[in-house]
Amino acid sequence: MTANEQDNARQYTASLVLIGDELLSGRTQDANLVYLAQWLNDRGVRLAEARIIPDDADRIVGTVNELRAVHDYVFTTGGIGPTHDDITAESIARAVGRKLVPHPKAYKALQDYYGEADFTPARQKMAMFPEGAELIENDISIAPGFRVENIFVMAGVPSIMRAMLEMLGGEVTGGAPLSSVTAEIDAPESALAGMLAEIQEAAVDVAIGSYPKFEDGRPSIHVVVRSTDAARAERVIDDVIAHAGHLGYAGQRIG
Amino acid sequence: MTANEQDNARQYTASLVLIGDELLSGRTQDANLVYLAQWLNDRGVRLAEARIIPDDADRIVGTVNELRAVHDYVFTTGGIGPTHDDITAESIARAVGRKLVPHPKAYKALQDYYGEADFTPARQKMAMFPEGAELIENDISIAPGFRVENIFVMAGVPSIMRAMLEMLGGEVTGGAPLSSVTAEIDAPESALAGMLAEIQEAAVDVAIGSYPKFEDGRPSIHVVVRSTDAARAERVIDDVIAHAGHLGYAGQRIG
Repeated sequence: MTANEQDNARQYTASLVLIGDELLSGRTQDANLVYLAQWLNDRGVRLAEARIIPDDADRIVGTVNELRAVHDYVFTTGGIGPTHDDITAESIARAVGRKLVPHPKAYKALQDYYGEADFTPARQKMAMFPEGAELIENDISIAPGFRVENIFVMAGVPSIMRAMLEMLGGEVTGGAPLSSVTAEIDAPESALAGMLAEIQEAAVDVAIGSYPKFEDGRPSIHVVVRSTDAARAERVIDDVIAHAGHLGYAGQRIG
Repeated sequence: MTANEQDNARQYTASLVLIGDELLSGRTQDANLVYLAQWLNDRGVRLAEARIIPDDADRIVGTVNELRAVHDYVFTTGGIGPTHDDITAESIARAVGRKLVPHPKAYKALQDYYGEADFTPARQKMAMFPEGAELIENDISIAPGFRVENIFVMAGVPSIMRAMLEMLGGEVTGGAPLSSVTAEIDAPESALAGMLAEIQEAAVDVAIGSYPKFEDGRPSIHVVVRSTDAARAERVIDDVIAHAGHLGYAGQRIG
């Protein structure tokens, strides 16, 4: 095994903390998790867990400290704006035991943007970060996110969160990306369950997922095979389609 | 204070565990959280936290046991079908220390549905529940969810999850529902931050949230006031709109 193969074999994991009362009240549908999961996967990092918590400092501190101890990376979204309910930066500072201080570059950029007279305390708050944090800028909003240790603090507004991800480079490295192939089979899930279990048992190096659909009262099933070995995933999904055929159910690759 | 007022004053909380590899791989956008949050809120129960975890028995057991100790109710979605990756029922049985046993009513219904010859072990799995669990049936799928202690185990398919919620009655009771009123104000969030902080400080009995929007490059802000006292929330949001007007920004109620 070469050093590179060894690196690919190690599984890198991340967790995501979605912060905001509005996500738990049912007011706002999250649009960041799916995007971040795919972005991480492209880099060979698996999103291993996500938590949605309210704008509460103790909860942010406790959650981030629990997760950063067990995952390579922790991402947060939300709560980095200028208002009283934006408490993420000060909470992360507490979590890592650092002072909350003005970042000279962010302070100057915000001061220039608003003008000295209108650079209110609320706006100055957007220049405050845990000591030693690196800014994560973006081309949409003047307020940056930041990285401190293995914690990446991002905006909650999806367009800004995505622009911040664009700015990240070598800070997030992983192993081999997970390939995923999907077949749609015109069968009720229960008709394929025994076959799928047998194939999974014989192919312990891949993960086989089974997702039923009910459209217009007609049941069908999406079977997804995931592996860091793309060719292996292809062979297993072809096997699933062939076995479904033997059972009398038509299936095809859809992704 | 009457007994009823006392009951309304107590805050009931729930947590939600979304179970499924497909939610963390970025394959599937969750559509259950917002719906359940609103359903709970109508019953005076606040969704206090949500977690998204993979199809992993130890993770399900640990997460559910952590959450059921601190919340009035725990809901789960996903993993109750017939396939090898559907491990929620057996995991919940482990979490509550009960045997996984066939439920006579579900067993008979599934057997009648599939016919004795086609009632395979995979299909029998859908009749297995923690001992003493109550079924949560639905009018879309033959496979029921269940309740055991304060844990409500629901399907992951949104239409089935919603049909299961319809079947719940007195099992989920709460206090006073939270009213929420919203104003849209044509201002950048930072221009209102000081004013909002002052109003929040004077109105500690309500929660004021501030949600920036960037549409077509134009910043605006949604201010949301939440309270169990609807009239009080209305007065506070009117106050916010009036103060925004004094600062030179037009605003209006939008919900």
